[in-house]
Amino acid sequence: MQNSVGIVETKYYKTEDKIILESGEQLGPIQIAYETYGTLNAQKDNAILLLHALTGDAHAAGFNSEQDKKPGWWDDMVGPGKAFDTEKYFVISSNMLGGCSGTTGPCSINPNTGKPYGLNFPVITIEDAVKVQKKLVDYLGVKKLIVAGGSMGGMQALEWAITHSDMVESAIIIASTSRLTAQGIAFNAVGRNAILSDPYFNNGDYYDKEKQPEKGLAIARMIGHITYLCEESMHSKFGRHFKNETNGIEKPNFDFNIDFQVESYLAHQGQTFVERFDANSYLYITKAVDYFDLAQKHGSLTNAFKKTNARFLIMSFTTDWLFPTSQSKEIVQALIKAGKDVSFCEIDSPCGHDAFLLEFETQTKIVKSFLSKAAGEKNATV
Amino acid sequence: MQNSVGIVETKYYKTEDKIILESGEQLGPIQIAYETYGTLNAQKDNAILLLHALTGDAHAAGFNSEQDKKPGWWDDMVGPGKAFDTEKYFVISSNMLGGCSGTTGPCSINPNTGKPYGLNFPVITIEDAVKVQKKLVDYLGVKKLIVAGGSMGGMQALEWAITHSDMVESAIIIASTSRLTAQGIAFNAVGRNAILSDPYFNNGDYYDKEKQPEKGLAIARMIGHITYLCEESMHSKFGRHFKNETNGIEKPNFDFNIDFQVESYLAHQGQTFVERFDANSYLYITKAVDYFDLAQKHGSLTNAFKKTNARFLIMSFTTDWLFPTSQSKEIVQALIKAGKDVSFCEIDSPCGHDAFLLEFETQTKIVKSFLSKAAGEKNATV
Repeated sequence: MQNSVGIVETKYYKTEDKIILESGEQLGPIQIAYETYGTLNAQKDNAILLLHALTGDAHAAGFNSEQDKKPGWWDDMVGPGKAFDTEKYFVISSNMLGGCSGTTGPCSINPNTGKPYGLNFPVITIEDAVKVQKKLVDYLGVKKLIVAGGSMGGMQALEWAITHSDMVESAIIIASTSRLTAQGIAFNAVGRNAILSDPYFNNGDYYDKEKQPEKGLAIARMIGHITYLCEESMHSKFGRHFKNETNGIEKPNFDFNIDFQVESYLAHQGQTFVERFDANSYLYITKAVDYFDLAQKHGSLTNAFKKTNARFLIMSFTTDWLFPTSQSKEIVQALIKAGKDVSFCEIDSPCGHDAFLLEFETQTKIVKSFLSKAAGEKNATV
Repeated sequence: MQNSVGIVETKYYKTEDKIILESGEQLGPIQIAYETYGTLNAQKDNAILLLHALTGDAHAAGFNSEQDKKPGWWDDMVGPGKAFDTEKYFVISSNMLGGCSGTTGPCSINPNTGKPYGLNFPVITIEDAVKVQKKLVDYLGVKKLIVAGGSMGGMQALEWAITHSDMVESAIIIASTSRLTAQGIAFNAVGRNAILSDPYFNNGDYYDKEKQPEKGLAIARMIGHITYLCEESMHSKFGRHFKNETNGIEKPNFDFNIDFQVESYLAHQGQTFVERFDANSYLYITKAVDYFDLAQKHGSLTNAFKKTNARFLIMSFTTDWLFPTSQSKEIVQALIKAGKDVSFCEIDSPCGHDAFLLEFETQTKIVKSFLSKAAGEKNATV
């Protein structure tokens, strides 16, 4: 566990008051699952808030127990000496509102009924998620903040930098966008459709039922995985190879069982996903992603960024077609127009959108360089 | 109905003998639904065989009755004076083996059981489909042939040109490929998964049941439609517009009903598709597409093309990411290596893969020019 934050405990903060959501509905009390790595300094200004992607959770780094086989989802980026250096920074990671890993979401108990919310959970937005995260950050006593996230995490980081301009000093936005493309909405919509069409979905009321909408959720995940990879990475990983081989010769099945290797990959991804994720959460969180649109909300993207005081690091990946470089450039151009401090890097990678979870070396160099240029580097030991 | 082939009748040819499929299984008798436009000349060498895409049928041009509101799927390309000029050519179009529009497929009656084949229908390939088309073409007395098709139709045209090199003089391959990408297989696989997961699929035995696997088939179709368009066309058609508006102001639903306009489009496409297509056919035909791989079958693509005597016209579209230009170029390069006569054109279009069904003007010019350069243009009236 060299360079690891080691064993960490997921903690829970509960806010008793209700928050007013963007839809106008109220929600509360709200529990927030979170982890922290490193130490908050005396000035309380060395915090980094990590924001997870679509199906992430609070467990960004280290291990939750000695038995844990896999570290947190961004472990290669978070730890002593790493991109998000826990010897310098107090790193916070929380599960998003609407999620299913400890933060209040559709699988949580609705205090009004004593049963899981299901579809009675209100539709939430990225703005709402940030509102909840702000409560956690205040509770932890943080005064100044760096925000960082990939994909949907980048959307939240953008929202943070604009809405809490007094607090956010730097924002790191990776493989993200200020608004999803029509194609992105379409993929999410078909995924939701697969869940809503599953006969075991039962209008979202399936938690105490024998069967769950697993097939619909698995299909949604398979569609997602096609968009997280790219043809280049699919070609090099699977090509047109068949799964079955006899004496070293690959053979087609001539039936509808798993046949090509890429089918086997997708089936595996679908199956492992249903073991860890809630179908209702998938509906709510993809919807929040679809709704996010800074230009629409603030009149223009430039107007949106006029409200921020943060320095920005924007990164994209050459083969990411879900959150393409063109969208990162849109952000960069609007930041420049708004007169803000922005660094931009398009990283050459064959890994598609998934690159933000894989290309650690390059990301580490760029993030370290960006953070070291922050006005007076923070020190946790001061 | 100016420039239209007018009212046409779908005819049926039945071959009593069995064919041996690529899988080794036997199938027969086989019925083939087909239409013809124009007249076969005395030399029987002015025929053009049109080959349809994934969900097409025999009805390529004209109207099947006075009441018909929509003409055939390639009506803009087929008729007097059009790209496939019915005053010069005898144009044939047939429904593919495994289809559900008159040619034998999984919804046909299995003579051994007296019930629809369902999943007892053997898995078929593009090669098998061409084998069946050859029987029809022979029955019609055709001696020389031009083959033309877009997407999966292009795959069949390639197979024709290689397997029946004595007969095929010219081949027009539009928005197609000699083998699907891993990403293409992945999309087809998820679509099949949606069908196979539908509780009303009932292992393919649903024809006499009250409920059919409509939701699974609709999801498969929605996935398909995302790949037939491109982000550019989705952006200009739908953008991020919501369906609901009040006093001219678009509003989000804050629920999981149809919300964005692109969702409405996909839902409509899914719904209209299930009214005209059979879920089992979708499984069989996408599988045939996945299996098609000329390089794998012939050792290399160049080897494959060494067997043909045809002239080739290869066309692709700039925004087609399902059958991208790079794949058309692969075909062109292999044809050149094999010493064959090939013309290639990449057409600038914002319509994605669907362009072969939409960009008539440019296609017409190119096809006419290509056909006019054929060794001695044919004349139906001779």
